[in-house]
Amino acid sequence: MRILGIDPGFAIVGYGAVECVEGRFSPISYGAITTPAHTLIENRLKEIYDCMTELIKTHRPDCIAIEELFFNTNRRTAVDVCQARGVILLSAVNAGINVYEYTPLQIKQAVVGYGRAEKQQVQYMVKLLLGLDKTPRPDDAADALAAAICHGSCASHKNGGI
Amino acid sequence: MRILGIDPGFAIVGYGAVECVEGRFSPISYGAITTPAHTLIENRLKEIYDCMTELIKTHRPDCIAIEELFFNTNRRTAVDVCQARGVILLSAVNAGINVYEYTPLQIKQAVVGYGRAEKQQVQYMVKLLLGLDKTPRPDDAADALAAAICHGSCASHKNGGI
Repeated sequence: MRILGIDPGFAIVGYGAVECVEGRFSPISYGAITTPAHTLIENRLKEIYDCMTELIKTHRPDCIAIEELFFNTNRRTAVDVCQARGVILLSAVNAGINVYEYTPLQIKQAVVGYGRAEKQQVQYMVKLLLGLDKTPRPDDAADALAAAICHGSCASHKNGGI
Repeated sequence: MRILGIDPGFAIVGYGAVECVEGRFSPISYGAITTPAHTLIENRLKEIYDCMTELIKTHRPDCIAIEELFFNTNRRTAVDVCQARGVILLSAVNAGINVYEYTPLQIKQAVVGYGRAEKQQVQYMVKLLLGLDKTPRPDDAADALAAAICHGSCASHKNGGI
Protein backbone atom coordinates (compact mmCIF):
# COMPACT_ATOMS: atom_id res chain seq x y z
CA MET A 1 0.00 0.00 0.00
CA ARG A 2 1.37 3.39 -0.95
CA ILE A 3 0.53 6.15 1.52
CA LEU A 4 0.99 9.89 1.04
CA GLY A 5 1.35 11.62 4.41
CA ILE A 6 0.58 15.32 4.63
CA ASP A 7 1.46 17.91 7.28
CA PRO A 8 -0.97 20.74 6.48
CA GLY A 9 0.03 24.40 6.40
CA PHE A 10 -0.21 27.41 4.10
CA ALA A 11 3.43 28.59 4.05
CA ILE A 12 4.81 25.03 4.11
CA VAL A 13 2.94 21.80 3.39
CA GLY A 14 5.06 18.78 4.32
CA TYR A 15 4.59 15.61 2.28
CA GLY A 16 6.00 12.13 2.47
CA ALA A 17 5.16 9.11 0.34
CA VAL A 18 5.94 5.66 1.75
CA GLU A 19 5.32 2.09 0.66
CA CYS A 20 3.98 -0.11 3.43
CA VAL A 21 4.13 -3.90 3.01
CA GLU A 22 3.11 -6.08 5.95
CA GLY A 23 3.86 -3.36 8.45
CA ARG A 24 7.29 -2.57 6.99
CA PHE A 25 7.97 0.80 5.46
CA SER A 26 10.16 2.09 2.67
CA PRO A 27 10.47 5.74 1.63
CA ILE A 28 9.42 6.83 -1.85
CA SER A 29 9.77 10.57 -1.72
CA TYR A 30 9.41 13.42 0.72
CA GLY A 31 9.71 17.19 0.84
CA ALA A 32 7.59 20.30 1.13
CA ILE A 33 5.37 22.51 -0.94
CA THR A 34 6.19 26.11 -0.08
CA THR A 35 4.25 29.22 -0.99
CA PRO A 36 5.70 32.74 -1.11
CA ALA A 37 4.99 35.10 1.80
CA HIS A 38 3.34 38.48 1.11
CA THR A 39 1.14 36.84 -1.52
CA LEU A 40 -2.66 36.78 -1.50
CA ILE A 41 -3.90 33.77 0.45
CA GLU A 42 -6.10 32.67 -2.49
CA ASN A 43 -3.02 32.46 -4.72
CA ARG A 44 -1.18 30.43 -2.08
CA LEU A 45 -4.20 28.10 -1.91
CA LYS A 46 -4.10 27.65 -5.67
CA GLU A 47 -0.37 26.85 -5.52
CA ILE A 48 -1.02 24.23 -2.82
CA TYR A 49 -3.94 22.68 -4.71
CA ASP A 50 -1.97 22.50 -7.96
CA CYS A 51 1.14 21.02 -6.30
CA MET A 52 -0.96 18.48 -4.39
CA THR A 53 -2.68 17.42 -7.62
CA GLU A 54 0.73 17.01 -9.25
CA LEU A 55 2.10 15.03 -6.27
CA ILE A 56 -0.88 12.65 -6.38
CA LYS A 57 -0.44 12.22 -10.13
CA THR A 58 3.28 11.47 -9.72
CA HIS A 59 3.11 9.09 -6.75
CA ARG A 60 -0.36 7.57 -7.24
CA PRO A 61 -0.94 6.87 -3.53
CA ASP A 62 -3.64 4.41 -2.44
CA CYS A 63 -4.61 6.83 0.30
CA ILE A 64 -3.67 10.04 2.08
CA ALA A 65 -2.95 10.40 5.81
CA ILE A 66 -3.23 13.89 7.26
CA GLU A 67 -2.91 15.42 10.69
CA GLU A 68 -6.07 16.75 12.36
CA LEU A 69 -5.96 20.42 13.28
CA PHE A 70 -6.51 22.03 16.64
CA PHE A 71 -6.76 25.66 17.55
CA ASN A 72 -4.34 26.62 20.21
CA THR A 73 -2.18 28.85 18.07
CA ASN A 74 -2.50 32.28 16.51
CA ARG A 75 -6.07 32.61 15.27
CA ARG A 76 -5.26 34.37 12.01
CA THR A 77 -2.74 31.67 11.15
CA ALA A 78 -5.25 29.00 12.15
CA VAL A 79 -7.80 30.26 9.60
CA ASP A 80 -5.22 30.10 6.81
CA VAL A 81 -3.93 26.65 7.81
CA CYS A 82 -7.51 25.33 7.77
CA GLN A 83 -8.21 26.98 4.42
CA ALA A 84 -5.10 25.25 3.06
CA ARG A 85 -6.25 21.96 4.57
CA GLY A 86 -9.55 22.44 2.73
CA VAL A 87 -7.88 22.62 -0.68
CA ILE A 88 -5.62 19.67 0.24
CA LEU A 89 -8.70 17.55 1.00
CA LEU A 90 -10.27 18.77 -2.24
CA SER A 91 -7.20 17.69 -4.25
CA ALA A 92 -7.55 14.19 -2.73
CA VAL A 93 -11.26 13.78 -3.38
CA ASN A 94 -10.91 15.19 -6.91
CA ALA A 95 -8.32 12.46 -7.56
CA GLY A 96 -10.60 9.81 -6.00
CA ILE A 97 -8.20 9.13 -3.09
CA ASN A 98 -9.46 8.28 0.42
CA VAL A 99 -8.26 10.49 3.27
CA TYR A 100 -7.54 9.33 6.82
CA GLU A 101 -7.15 11.81 9.67
CA TYR A 102 -5.05 11.30 12.78
CA THR A 103 -4.51 13.45 15.85
CA PRO A 104 -0.92 14.38 16.81
CA LEU A 105 -1.39 12.05 19.80
CA GLN A 106 -2.30 9.10 17.57
CA ILE A 107 0.66 9.78 15.29
CA LYS A 108 3.16 9.94 18.16
CA GLN A 109 1.62 6.84 19.71
CA ALA A 110 1.96 4.92 16.44
CA VAL A 111 5.49 6.10 15.58
CA VAL A 112 7.17 6.33 18.99
CA GLY A 113 4.78 4.26 21.11
CA TYR A 114 4.19 7.22 23.41
CA GLY A 115 1.54 9.89 22.72
CA ARG A 116 3.45 12.68 24.43
CA ALA A 117 6.78 12.06 22.69
CA GLU A 118 9.04 14.99 21.81
CA LYS A 119 9.45 16.18 18.21
CA GLN A 120 13.03 14.82 18.13
CA GLN A 121 11.90 11.36 19.19
CA VAL A 122 9.34 11.30 16.35
CA GLN A 123 11.98 12.42 13.84
CA TYR A 124 14.43 9.79 15.11
CA MET A 125 11.85 6.99 14.75
CA VAL A 126 10.81 8.17 11.27
CA LYS A 127 14.49 7.98 10.20
CA LEU A 128 14.88 4.53 11.79
CA LEU A 129 11.61 3.01 10.46
CA LEU A 130 12.33 4.22 6.91
CA GLY A 131 16.03 3.24 7.00
CA LEU A 132 17.13 6.77 6.12
CA ASP A 133 20.70 8.03 6.52
CA LYS A 134 19.59 11.32 8.02
CA THR A 135 16.58 12.97 9.59
CA PRO A 136 14.17 14.18 6.89
CA ARG A 137 14.14 17.95 6.42
CA PRO A 138 12.23 20.19 6.69
CA ASP A 139 10.46 19.17 9.92
CA ASP A 140 7.17 19.35 8.02
CA ALA A 141 8.33 16.50 5.75
CA ALA A 142 9.24 14.39 8.79
CA ASP A 143 5.80 15.10 10.28
CA ALA A 144 4.16 14.10 7.00
CA LEU A 145 6.14 10.84 6.92
CA ALA A 146 5.08 10.21 10.54
CA ALA A 147 1.41 10.60 9.53
CA ALA A 148 1.94 8.12 6.69
CA ILE A 149 3.65 5.63 9.04
CA CYS A 150 0.79 6.07 11.52
CA HIS A 151 -1.77 5.14 8.88
CA GLY A 152 0.32 2.19 7.68
CA SER A 153 0.61 0.84 11.23
CA CYS A 154 -3.09 1.26 11.94
CA ALA A 155 -4.05 -0.40 8.65
CA SER A 156 -1.57 -3.29 9.24
CA HIS A 157 -2.95 -3.88 12.74
CA LYS A 158 -6.50 -3.94 11.39
CA ASN A 159 -5.46 -6.51 8.77
CA GLY A 160 -3.65 -8.63 11.36
CA GLY A 161 -0.24 -7.48 10.11
CA ILE A 162 3.03 -6.95 12.10
CA MET B 1 -20.08 45.99 -11.66
CA ARG B 2 -21.46 42.57 -10.86
CA ILE B 3 -20.58 41.34 -7.37
CA LEU B 4 -21.04 37.84 -5.99
CA GLY B 5 -21.35 37.95 -2.19
CA ILE B 6 -20.56 34.80 -0.22
CA ASP B 7 -21.40 33.84 3.36
CA PRO B 8 -18.99 30.96 3.98
CA GLY B 9 -19.97 27.70 5.69
CA PHE B 10 -19.76 23.96 5.13
CA ALA B 11 -23.40 22.92 5.70
CA ILE B 12 -24.78 26.09 4.07
CA VAL B 13 -22.93 28.56 1.85
CA GLY B 14 -25.05 31.64 1.23
CA TYR B 15 -24.61 33.45 -2.07
CA GLY B 16 -26.03 36.59 -3.59
CA ALA B 17 -25.23 38.22 -6.92
CA VAL B 18 -25.98 41.92 -7.33
CA GLU B 19 -25.39 44.51 -10.00
CA CYS B 20 -24.00 47.78 -8.67
CA VAL B 21 -24.16 50.89 -10.86
CA GLU B 22 -23.10 54.22 -9.35
CA GLY B 23 -23.82 53.05 -5.82
CA ARG B 24 -27.28 51.68 -6.68
CA PHE B 25 -27.97 47.99 -6.41
CA SER B 26 -30.20 45.52 -8.19
CA PRO B 27 -30.51 41.84 -7.32
CA ILE B 28 -29.51 39.20 -9.86
CA SER B 29 -29.86 35.97 -7.93
CA TYR B 30 -29.46 34.65 -4.42
CA GLY B 31 -29.76 31.40 -2.51
CA ALA B 32 -27.62 28.82 -0.78
CA ILE B 33 -25.41 25.86 -1.56
CA THR B 34 -26.23 23.12 0.95
CA THR B 35 -24.28 19.94 1.60
CA PRO B 36 -25.73 16.80 3.22
CA ALA B 37 -24.98 16.13 6.90
CA HIS B 38 -23.33 12.85 7.89
CA THR B 39 -21.16 12.99 4.78
CA LEU B 40 -17.36 13.02 4.72
CA ILE B 41 -16.10 16.61 4.93
CA GLU B 42 -13.94 16.13 1.80
CA ASN B 43 -17.06 15.25 -0.21
CA ARG B 44 -18.85 18.32 1.15
CA LEU B 45 -15.85 20.45 0.14
CA LYS B 46 -16.00 19.02 -3.38
CA GLU B 47 -19.73 19.80 -3.56
CA ILE B 48 -19.07 23.39 -2.47
CA TYR B 49 -16.18 23.83 -4.92
CA ASP B 50 -18.19 22.42 -7.83
CA CYS B 51 -21.27 24.54 -7.03
CA MET B 52 -19.15 27.68 -6.62
CA THR B 53 -17.48 27.04 -9.99
CA GLU B 54 -20.93 26.63 -11.56
CA LEU B 55 -22.24 29.82 -9.89
CA ILE B 56 -19.28 31.82 -11.17
CA LYS B 57 -19.78 30.39 -14.66
CA THR B 58 -23.49 31.28 -14.61
CA HIS B 59 -23.29 34.79 -13.16
CA ARG B 60 -19.83 35.86 -14.36
CA PRO B 61 -19.19 38.27 -11.47
CA ASP B 62 -16.47 40.93 -11.72
CA CYS B 63 -15.46 40.14 -8.17
CA ILE B 64 -16.36 38.19 -5.07
CA ALA B 65 -17.02 39.67 -1.62
CA ILE B 66 -16.72 37.33 1.34
CA GLU B 67 -16.99 37.64 5.10
CA GLU B 68 -13.81 37.26 7.15
CA LEU B 69 -13.88 34.48 9.71
CA PHE B 70 -13.27 34.70 13.43
CA PHE B 71 -13.03 31.96 15.97
CA ASN B 72 -15.42 32.43 18.79
CA THR B 73 -17.59 29.44 18.02
CA ASN B 74 -17.26 25.69 18.33
CA ARG B 75 -13.71 24.77 17.36
CA ARG B 76 -14.55 21.65 15.36
CA THR B 77 -17.11 23.60 13.34
CA ALA B 78 -14.62 26.43 12.88
CA VAL B 79 -12.10 24.08 11.23
CA ASP B 80 -14.70 22.88 8.73
CA VAL B 81 -15.98 26.40 7.97
CA CYS B 82 -12.42 27.51 7.24
CA GLN B 83 -11.76 24.46 5.09
CA ALA B 84 -14.89 25.32 3.10
CA ARG B 85 -13.72 28.92 2.83
CA GLY B 86 -10.45 27.60 1.41
CA VAL B 87 -12.17 25.82 -1.48
CA ILE B 88 -14.43 28.85 -2.06
CA LEU B 89 -11.33 31.07 -2.45
CA LEU B 90 -9.80 28.42 -4.74
CA SER B 91 -12.91 28.41 -6.97
CA ALA B 92 -12.57 32.20 -7.31
CA VAL B 93 -8.86 32.23 -8.15
CA ASN B 94 -9.25 29.30 -10.56
CA ALA B 95 -11.86 31.40 -12.39
CA GLY B 96 -9.56 34.45 -12.35
CA ILE B 97 -11.91 36.46 -10.09
CA ASN B 98 -10.60 38.88 -7.44
CA VAL B 99 -11.75 38.34 -3.86
CA TYR B 100 -12.43 41.09 -1.30
CA GLU B 101 -12.77 40.30 2.39
CA TYR B 102 -14.83 42.24 4.91
CA THR B 103 -15.32 41.84 8.64
CA PRO B 104 -18.90 41.52 9.97
CA LEU B 105 -18.39 45.00 11.46
CA GLN B 106 -17.50 46.49 8.06
CA ILE B 107 -20.49 44.82 6.43
CA LYS B 108 -22.95 46.09 9.08
CA GLN B 109 -21.39 49.55 8.91
CA ALA B 110 -21.79 49.65 5.12
CA VAL B 111 -25.32 48.23 4.98
CA VAL B 112 -26.96 49.68 8.12
CA GLY B 113 -24.55 52.51 8.94
CA TYR B 114 -23.90 51.02 12.37
CA GLY B 115 -21.26 48.34 13.02
CA ARG B 116 -23.13 46.70 15.89
CA ALA B 117 -26.48 46.44 14.11
CA GLU B 118 -28.75 43.45 14.78
CA LYS B 119 -29.21 40.68 12.19
CA GLN B 120 -32.80 41.83 11.53
CA GLN B 121 -31.65 45.38 10.76
CA VAL B 122 -29.15 44.05 8.22
CA GLN B 123 -31.84 41.89 6.59
CA TYR B 124 -34.25 44.82 6.47
CA MET B 125 -31.69 47.06 4.78
CA VAL B 126 -30.71 44.34 2.28
CA LYS B 127 -34.40 44.01 1.30
CA LEU B 128 -34.75 47.79 1.03
CA LEU B 129 -31.53 48.47 -0.89
CA LEU B 130 -32.28 45.70 -3.41
CA GLY B 131 -35.98 46.62 -3.75
CA LEU B 132 -37.10 43.11 -2.83
CA ASP B 133 -40.69 42.22 -1.81
CA LYS B 134 -39.55 40.07 1.08
CA THR B 135 -36.50 39.38 3.20
CA PRO B 136 -34.12 37.01 1.38
CA ARG B 137 -34.08 33.48 2.81
CA PRO B 138 -32.18 31.62 4.08
CA ASP B 139 -30.37 34.05 6.40
CA ASP B 140 -27.11 32.95 4.77
CA ALA B 141 -28.31 34.37 1.42
CA ALA B 142 -29.18 37.69 3.10
CA ASP B 143 -25.71 37.76 4.69
CA ALA B 144 -24.12 37.05 1.32
CA LEU B 145 -26.10 39.89 -0.30
CA ALA B 146 -24.99 42.16 2.56
CA ALA B 147 -21.33 41.32 1.80
CA ALA B 148 -21.91 42.13 -1.89
CA ILE B 149 -23.59 45.45 -1.00
CA CYS B 150 -20.70 46.27 1.35
CA HIS B 151 -18.18 45.77 -1.45
CA GLY B 152 -20.29 47.78 -3.89
CA SER B 153 -20.52 50.68 -1.42
CA CYS B 154 -16.81 50.64 -0.65
CA ALA B 155 -15.90 50.47 -4.33
CA SER B 156 -18.34 53.32 -5.17
CA HIS B 157 -16.91 55.49 -2.38
CA LYS B 158 -13.37 54.87 -3.62
CA ASN B 159 -14.41 55.84 -7.15
CA GLY B 160 -16.17 58.95 -5.86
CA GLY B 161 -19.62 57.40 -6.42
CA ILE B 162 -22.85 57.90 -4.42
